Amino acid sequence: MTDVRDEGRATAAVGGPEPSDKAPMREALIEAAFQLFLVHGFERTTVDDIVARAGVGRRSFFRYFPSKEDVVFPEHERCLAEMSAFLTTSTDGEPLDVVCDAARLVMRMYAANPEFSVQRYRLTREVPSLRGSELSVVHRYERTLAHYLRQRYAGDDAGALRAEVQAAAVVAAHNNGLRTWLRGGGQGDAAKAVDQSLIFVRQTWGGVGESAERSTAPAPAPEDDVIVLVAPRSAPIWRVVQKIEKTLGDG
Amino acid sequence: MTDVRDEGRATAAVGGPEPSDKAPMREALIEAAFQLFLVHGFERTTVDDIVARAGVGRRSFFRYFPSKEDVVFPEHERCLAEMSAFLTTSTDGEPLDVVCDAARLVMRMYAANPEFSVQRYRLTREVPSLRGSELSVVHRYERTLAHYLRQRYAGDDAGALRAEVQAAAVVAAHNNGLRTWLRGGGQGDAAKAVDQSLIFVRQTWGGVGESAERSTAPAPAPEDDVIVLVAPRSAPIWRVVQKIEKTLGDG
Repeated sequence: MTDVRDEGRATAAVGGPEPSDKAPMREALIEAAFQLFLVHGFERTTVDDIVARAGVGRRSFFRYFPSKEDVVFPEHERCLAEMSAFLTTSTDGEPLDVVCDAARLVMRMYAANPEFSVQRYRLTREVPSLRGSELSVVHRYERTLAHYLRQRYAGDDAGALRAEVQAAAVVAAHNNGLRTWLRGGGQGDAAKAVDQSLIFVRQTWGGVGESAERSTAPAPAPEDDVIVLVAPRSAPIWRVVQKIEKTLGDG
Repeated sequence: MTDVRDEGRATAAVGGPEPSDKAPMREALIEAAFQLFLVHGFERTTVDDIVARAGVGRRSFFRYFPSKEDVVFPEHERCLAEMSAFLTTSTDGEPLDVVCDAARLVMRMYAANPEFSVQRYRLTREVPSLRGSELSVVHRYERTLAHYLRQRYAGDDAGALRAEVQAAAVVAAHNNGLRTWLRGGGQGDAAKAVDQSLIFVRQTWGGVGESAERSTAPAPAPEDDVIVLVAPRSAPIWRVVQKIEKTLGDG
């Protein structure tokens, strides 16, 4: 059930190799849990059912997972740690591009095992307590990204606001792309789906740099070169934009 | 404890008048619960403690609140209903301005009772299960706004993506402003704090229309009048903004 891989990215958490000798038991528990959830439903499956099917003791379950909900999201802790590590070393580059790259780590975790990801997506939509767990983990990703952006924007007026809004926008766009892929049964290219959504966020804030080249955003045509106007430094940018839009006929 | 009001906006949920004769018991339960939470903590207070202090039966508690968590957020259901009703009737106007106005309904609910809101904010930060409840309700607001925007953008390419990203941005900005106000002990002007954050979202997408006039954005001084040059219609607005920012010395 958990042996579908993508580009060899399958990892320790689901079906992949794990350096520690504890991995087989953890995997067996995840596999047993999902087999039971799919047949009997999440609510009607108990931890006792899971350990019986996996052939291990109850204590072993709780060594790996704090609760039954956690067995459904076995890789998020590691992915959060990877994201933090990636951000800690990413002190250069456009801040928004960096957090888009960080968000892609989540997509890659899902893409590493399409079948498991699609099963979990369907399960999560049906079980309220799992939706709660998922909201909580999504919130932690968002906070991690916002924390990074706040540091990068330290000293800017309203840097914290910009950081929080952009982090929320990146997470929303990422999840929009990921959901498109999941709804398609995990058949297509998850990276493409997510990148197509993330480009909207980067276009929104005008930052289409190096990462954009990799993405699917249409490059501006040469005739799109604009004439630059000069305004007093104190002019709020939105007023400039408003007038331009009016002049261009959008207003 | 719950008698601090703001601009007469206090409502049935917390300390205000209620047409139904059930209100006093509901209010008594909320008041008793918060007195106990503040003294003994949320976790150590039981529903039995709350009903004993309020002088009502256990069944009465569950008639008003599905769980102990729900007594902490007594007004969100009504606010969600108000938001939906507001959006249903708001078929005109810039979609982004409409959802900003809808988000302000949440701020007003908090501002209606600053003392209660600040107490709850402090309690929620300390109790993980309350943070979970709060995340869940924030998500419902975000979905409500996204649903509205999706309908308004129906037919647009990537309308759903735009709707979800903008709804997330509006919620993040709203909560940033609200948190600023709550951290200040609910002393200042909640509307001003939230509007100052929301203006960033509306500037981001270039739409600063009628609502901006009502908001607290500083009015531009006359000498801020800008000179507008004309760019080709096909120029993406972000490139125009990027160049302006560079010219003004921000880039």
